[in-house]
Amino acid sequence: MKKKMSCLLVSSCCAALAGSALAAEGMWTLDNLPGDKIAKEYGFRPTAEWSEKVMHSSARLAGGCSGSYISADGLVLTNHHCGVHCVEDLSTADKDYVKLGFLAKSRQEEIQCPGVELNRLDQITDVTKEVQGALAGLSGEAYVRAERAVTAKLTSACAAGDAQRTRCDVVDLYHGGRYHLYRYHRFQDVRLVFVPEKDIAFFGGDPDNFNFPRYDLDMALLRAYEDGKPAAIKDYFPVNPAGARAGELVFVTGHPGHTDRQLTRDQLELLRDIGLTDRLIRLAEMRGMLTQYGRSSAEAARVSTTDLFGVENSFKAFTGELQTLQDPAFWRAKNAEETQLQAWYRKHPDNKGGNPWQAIAAADQTYRGFATEYRVLEGAGGFWSQYFAYARTLVRGASQRAKPNAERFREYSDAALPRQEQLLFSTAPIYPDYERVKLGWSLGKLRELLGADDPRVKAILGRDSPQQVADRVIAGTKLGDVELRRKLWQGGQAAVDANDDPMIRLARMVEPDALAVRKRFEDDVESVIRKNTERIAAARFAMSGTGVYPDATFTLRLSYGDVRGWDEHGHTVAPFTTYGGAFERATGVDPFALPPSWLAAKPKLDMAQRLNFVTTNDIIGGNSGSPVINRNREIVGLIFDGNIQSLGGDFWYDIATNRAVAVHAGAIIDALQNIYGAGDLAKEMLGR
Amino acid sequence: MKKKMSCLLVSSCCAALAGSALAAEGMWTLDNLPGDKIAKEYGFRPTAEWSEKVMHSSARLAGGCSGSYISADGLVLTNHHCGVHCVEDLSTADKDYVKLGFLAKSRQEEIQCPGVELNRLDQITDVTKEVQGALAGLSGEAYVRAERAVTAKLTSACAAGDAQRTRCDVVDLYHGGRYHLYRYHRFQDVRLVFVPEKDIAFFGGDPDNFNFPRYDLDMALLRAYEDGKPAAIKDYFPVNPAGARAGELVFVTGHPGHTDRQLTRDQLELLRDIGLTDRLIRLAEMRGMLTQYGRSSAEAARVSTTDLFGVENSFKAFTGELQTLQDPAFWRAKNAEETQLQAWYRKHPDNKGGNPWQAIAAADQTYRGFATEYRVLEGAGGFWSQYFAYARTLVRGASQRAKPNAERFREYSDAALPRQEQLLFSTAPIYPDYERVKLGWSLGKLRELLGADDPRVKAILGRDSPQQVADRVIAGTKLGDVELRRKLWQGGQAAVDANDDPMIRLARMVEPDALAVRKRFEDDVESVIRKNTERIAAARFAMSGTGVYPDATFTLRLSYGDVRGWDEHGHTVAPFTTYGGAFERATGVDPFALPPSWLAAKPKLDMAQRLNFVTTNDIIGGNSGSPVINRNREIVGLIFDGNIQSLGGDFWYDIATNRAVAVHAGAIIDALQNIYGAGDLAKEMLGR
Repeated sequence: MKKKMSCLLVSSCCAALAGSALAAEGMWTLDNLPGDKIAKEYGFRPTAEWSEKVMHSSARLAGGCSGSYISADGLVLTNHHCGVHCVEDLSTADKDYVKLGFLAKSRQEEIQCPGVELNRLDQITDVTKEVQGALAGLSGEAYVRAERAVTAKLTSACAAGDAQRTRCDVVDLYHGGRYHLYRYHRFQDVRLVFVPEKDIAFFGGDPDNFNFPRYDLDMALLRAYEDGKPAAIKDYFPVNPAGARAGELVFVTGHPGHTDRQLTRDQLELLRDIGLTDRLIRLAEMRGMLTQYGRSSAEAARVSTTDLFGVENSFKAFTGELQTLQDPAFWRAKNAEETQLQAWYRKHPDNKGGNPWQAIAAADQTYRGFATEYRVLEGAGGFWSQYFAYARTLVRGASQRAKPNAERFREYSDAALPRQEQLLFSTAPIYPDYERVKLGWSLGKLRELLGADDPRVKAILGRDSPQQVADRVIAGTKLGDVELRRKLWQGGQAAVDANDDPMIRLARMVEPDALAVRKRFEDDVESVIRKNTERIAAARFAMSGTGVYPDATFTLRLSYGDVRGWDEHGHTVAPFTTYGGAFERATGVDPFALPPSWLAAKPKLDMAQRLNFVTTNDIIGGNSGSPVINRNREIVGLIFDGNIQSLGGDFWYDIATNRAVAVHAGAIIDALQNIYGAGDLAKEMLGR
Repeated sequence: MKKKMSCLLVSSCCAALAGSALAAEGMWTLDNLPGDKIAKEYGFRPTAEWSEKVMHSSARLAGGCSGSYISADGLVLTNHHCGVHCVEDLSTADKDYVKLGFLAKSRQEEIQCPGVELNRLDQITDVTKEVQGALAGLSGEAYVRAERAVTAKLTSACAAGDAQRTRCDVVDLYHGGRYHLYRYHRFQDVRLVFVPEKDIAFFGGDPDNFNFPRYDLDMALLRAYEDGKPAAIKDYFPVNPAGARAGELVFVTGHPGHTDRQLTRDQLELLRDIGLTDRLIRLAEMRGMLTQYGRSSAEAARVSTTDLFGVENSFKAFTGELQTLQDPAFWRAKNAEETQLQAWYRKHPDNKGGNPWQAIAAADQTYRGFATEYRVLEGAGGFWSQYFAYARTLVRGASQRAKPNAERFREYSDAALPRQEQLLFSTAPIYPDYERVKLGWSLGKLRELLGADDPRVKAILGRDSPQQVADRVIAGTKLGDVELRRKLWQGGQAAVDANDDPMIRLARMVEPDALAVRKRFEDDVESVIRKNTERIAAARFAMSGTGVYPDATFTLRLSYGDVRGWDEHGHTVAPFTTYGGAFERATGVDPFALPPSWLAAKPKLDMAQRLNFVTTNDIIGGNSGSPVINRNREIVGLIFDGNIQSLGGDFWYDIATNRAVAVHAGAIIDALQNIYGAGDLAKEMLGR
């Protein structure tokens, strides 16, 4: 997920954890919108046709973002920070589009992005019965196998042999309460059309990230192509530069990545200790390292800047989440909710498998015993290197593809292979000096976390230091060559076995241990938790009915709310900012420096033009790039962040302070016309 | 505290939290040794004379370590990692004693260490009645003032006008259950006699830190001087190179810095969230930054290496502590203990001030609300710079010294001034390039943690970036000049006010905000907690009697135990390692490279010579440099670490796996004689 956004309070009477949703709360699936609530609160009821058109006009970026189709010719609107990997991949030391921005003056100048996949959700099918039937009564390894098999069967049938254009995923909703089959149209030829300079896309930088008032033009325009031509799009959102007025009903359609509102207390404790604390500690060290690396030269800064952004962004988001899990008020609310559900459960016991909360707690305890191994070996935390990622895909892909589809890991199933291949054959540049730094550091972590005497560590390092091993492997690997990667992929197991590239050898050496720890995780932890969360979900449905929304799972959701400021320790934060505010905040020093294009255009700009605004919509990381639409399905804004109070939204929601942060549609159009000389694009977006 | 060591288990039936102490458990005050227990378990009972001689032979390093007097001529044995700041301060780019080691071939070659103070505890007086009487019935600001006044009165009378040679501290034991007045002899002329190369002092580096088997000669020899001559020492420990045999009773005398075994659950949660998690995150970022900075040049590596060691050492220690506070088994034990004590308390209520646990919890909640401000401003977390530390001492010292002794902060009381002056007038070198990196980074933290729009941040940064401010202030400050610092200190308030050094200006600008947040901490948090922990301590005494030991407070303690290995997941870890093991483990690559002196001496060394060993003594950080003595008060070893299982010793103790790690006395003598050509020193230590 590129950005984390959304949903919580600091001191509140009225946060909701589960059960009946509060006003504006909820990331709803398109087939189960709370029509009555919306109608009652805002006097508007989405029709089935409305929902279907919204669904077809919404875009998903497979890398972890949202977007929208905004013209009949496949134009797509998303965030700068969602498209920045593409911008970086197309840049060189001499021509840095991250710094300079990019504008294709004609369609001929639109450049293909390495590794970007767009999806459009075409159909939702309920397959709860099939999946739950296949898993009934199973546990451990048998459960894992059955889940793999039923998923493969459903997705294969759905894709009907055209995995290149059709992507099918089995989606777990309500932690196993429902399973849906999502059929997407897949676009892998995605081209860069426009991005502004990072200085305005991310004005205020890390200090202003997750804050409001805000002054960012965090936008990117991409275009979906098919058969070498701009894709023909039937349903799309036109842009309405007037935006939305304060108090106006607005919707956000997009792909929130992950929420944890329905986790058990025990799962939340595990998340606090390992998912957040451990991860924050790692991110903090990466941050110190990347910051200092970036000071070593301009080129070092350039090649590491996007990684540093990702690290700082996650760090800030997880910090906010951890603060919620350190807040006694949160735990009081969680305890009350779980106690109520458990009391209900005791009166209506599901006697088929003991107490599900206890089973989950036991599995979590098991996981604590090998979480480090799992993350270092299978999670590749010990091998931070793009070359290693390629080597892992080649080594694992060879053995996985030799198996029937029904027996493969999900990420090597037929449904997933087109995406794997797109990433593996990416032409994105790799920087060996930077790779040496990353791999040397992470091999040091491997030794630190598993111990210098661990036999797996000794096998990898021998008598050398982590940095010596990294230097040697990076110097010797040829995996920077796309054609070699293609040859090895196509050559399958025999080709990979015969290859003696040092990075392939490293990945091969790690593979048995990584697979062993993954199997342990799947059999002893993941399957136990899935099985038992499913039973808790059933209890929650039985107790509370179906007027609830599922935790986010990077699948399409709609949230509703309105444009609204909030009260911050007694003073009111207004819902809109303007161009004028950006010029006032600018100091000329990074990250508060406006780009030359803005300074040059200043005399002809209307300082009252609205630039950013906030709404009460319930969103979270993955919603980056989501359109904000009005009831007429016109784009009035572009989500790019949440305020700092929203970071606990992973766990609960509070309308008093939780705000989504968006770029105003008027600023998008105005900047294209009056700053970037991109009037044609503005016209296309306005539907003219 | 230089090193964190000690005391806990991972999976155990028999960990102790409080109440009656287990075998070998406890860091006992010298006036309250558990004579019956020791006699029963080991057949030896320390006499009063024995205890007094041990007390007088024990050394404290004011910077946070332990040591021992080992000759009539003031020779002091401690760890390399306790003396390394001195070694670094005496080094230059051309002559790096950290790398090369140091040996004074004669007393004339012994060099004075900047900033090292040694103490010897001469007398303990119980002042519980005086202190508790002065504080009775007070709270908030009045409590803080009264505590300052009674402390000043007691310490002034104790020092009797000779603060240069006599240091008196009021010591809080049992969290306010007892107050003792400790009178120390103070040595400020301390000279470096010998250190080995860091490669053998810290062989295995961070990977082996807190591990065993181990192969380190982590020793340093200092000498206390008085009136320009070696100090005449009456009571000291001779060294017995035979060491101790497996199972033999041994004592550790030293200054454990801090334990948290008697904290309330609420205090432990605060410690988990802020004391450990927040600190680990900061340390992790510092670690990444320092590691990468050290790669920029050999000189950058040299000047930052000791800081990096400190950061990594604390990081590993706190990680172990955090793991205990994430262990459900620990919380079950803690809950049981606190529930029992609370039940007792309900039956014997102290009605003078409500429920003390609730009062502490409320104060902790208050602290959570401004902990960040406190640590960034008053804790100087936003100003990581030696120049800033000097400026703070000058600015604050000027205003504090203008007040009567009874109204000053403890660190500016008459008792503390000699140490402040020693540090302020230190001739230790400062490296401006390194200062720029540290200050720039920490000013970035200031902005991050308080927010870019915080008025205090805006006042400090203006329209510049944190790095620009750091660069300007470091370039302009003259505080590297000792004579200027001396002039400003002696000139008092008028001199400081008139000075316009940019670092002095910065410290002056921060001062009112730092003092305000400190006052809030003292009045609303610290005094509430002290007052209420005192009440809990009284209940604990009343319930359990006096056969308990107090939490560690960097005051002299004795622990007893025996030389013993342990069972590690089914295999036995033997208690001794040898020279031979070190040569086997050496790879030639840092941190597993033995120094040239060892490689050259190898042919004449006895590979069976014992090098390190473990004991069951209950120790923790601050015990670094403690002697391990036998019942005859002979040194048989030198504490330098604890095993990884000992890290939870901050919270509880388990004899099954908790081990103290020591250098064998035989290796100390042998290395001096056969590797370093320091036979004269060996003779002096052997009492010949």
